[in-house]
Amino acid sequence: MADRSASVVQVFVLGIDPGLSRCGYSVLDSRPRKPRAVAMGVLRTDPAHPVPKRLAELQAEFRGLFDEFEPSVLAIERLFVQHNLRTAISVGQASGLVLAEAASRGISVAEYSPNQVKGAVAGDGRADKRAIQEMVQTMLGLSELPKPADAADAAAVALCHLSHEPLSAGARRGAAV
Amino acid sequence: MADRSASVVQVFVLGIDPGLSRCGYSVLDSRPRKPRAVAMGVLRTDPAHPVPKRLAELQAEFRGLFDEFEPSVLAIERLFVQHNLRTAISVGQASGLVLAEAASRGISVAEYSPNQVKGAVAGDGRADKRAIQEMVQTMLGLSELPKPADAADAAAVALCHLSHEPLSAGARRGAAV
Repeated sequence: MADRSASVVQVFVLGIDPGLSRCGYSVLDSRPRKPRAVAMGVLRTDPAHPVPKRLAELQAEFRGLFDEFEPSVLAIERLFVQHNLRTAISVGQASGLVLAEAASRGISVAEYSPNQVKGAVAGDGRADKRAIQEMVQTMLGLSELPKPADAADAAAVALCHLSHEPLSAGARRGAAV
Repeated sequence: MADRSASVVQVFVLGIDPGLSRCGYSVLDSRPRKPRAVAMGVLRTDPAHPVPKRLAELQAEFRGLFDEFEPSVLAIERLFVQHNLRTAISVGQASGLVLAEAASRGISVAEYSPNQVKGAVAGDGRADKRAIQEMVQTMLGLSELPKPADAADAAAVALCHLSHEPLSAGARRGAAV
C-alpha cells in the first residue's frame, strides 16, 4: 500500500521574475514528471506612486503569496545581466524584498542564471520570450499561452528548479539559507 | 507658559547609507540649529553568508531601528550614480528593504542626490569622504571623527534633510508616502 501521507503532500515552488512595475510570479506543484501551475500572474505597482509606497505594496503581495501557498522553495533568476542601471536598481529592490521574506521564513532560495532557465525550459540558452512562453505552456499543459511574458518567465525559473531538483523541491545544495 | 507637551517632543530623523556588507545609519534629534546624534553606526552582514540570509538580517536590523527610535522621517541618498552594476544591485536590495519598511509604517521618505548631501554638509558637491566626516563631526559636536565613512554618510544625509526641512522633520513636500 502506498504511503498515503506522502501521496497527499503538495510541495510548492514559488518562481519570481522580480520587477517593481511588473513582477512575475508562479506557484508550481512539484509533482514528478508533471508539474502543475497552481497560480501564475503578475504583481503590478503604479509607476505614478512614490517608490517606497510601491515597495511596501509589493512586499505585502509577496507576503500574501508566502502565506497562501507556503512554498518550500523560492526559485529566482540570479541578477547580473541587467544592462540598464536604473532597471538594475529597481529589480534589486524588488528582489531584495522577496529574498529577505523567504530567508526570514526559513524558506530555501534557489538561484539560476538566465541561461540555465532558458536552457532548462527551451533547451537553448538563447531562446526568446515567445519560445519561453510556448514551452511553459506545453510543460504545464496550459490551454493558452501564458501572458504576460513576466508570468511565463516566473514559471520558467520554477520549472528550471524542478528540472535541477526533480525529486524534491527542498533545499538546493550549497544555497541553503 | 510654554506648551510643555511640545517642548519635550523629540523628532528623530533616520539617515541611511544603504549597503549590504556595510549599511551606515544615523538617528538625529532634529532640534532647530543644534541637531544631536542619538545613535550612529554601521550595520554589517557577513559576505560569506548567502545573500537572502544577509538581507533578512539587515531587514531585522532596520526594524530594530524603527522600533527603538520611531523616527518620523527616513532620509536616504537617491540611487542613480552607482557605476558598478553589482554594487547597484546590492545597494538596491538594501535600499528596497528600508524604503518598504518606512512606507509600511507610514513614515515619510526624503531622498536627496549625492550632490545635495555633500553641498548641504560641506558646502561643496564634490567634497571627499574625509571632508564629509570632518563636517559631520563639527555639525554634531562629536568628540571624534565619525567612523567608518558609511556612518558619517548616513549622518550627512540626515543633516541634509534637516537643512532642507529646518522647522520640521515631517513629510517632505511632494514625497509623502
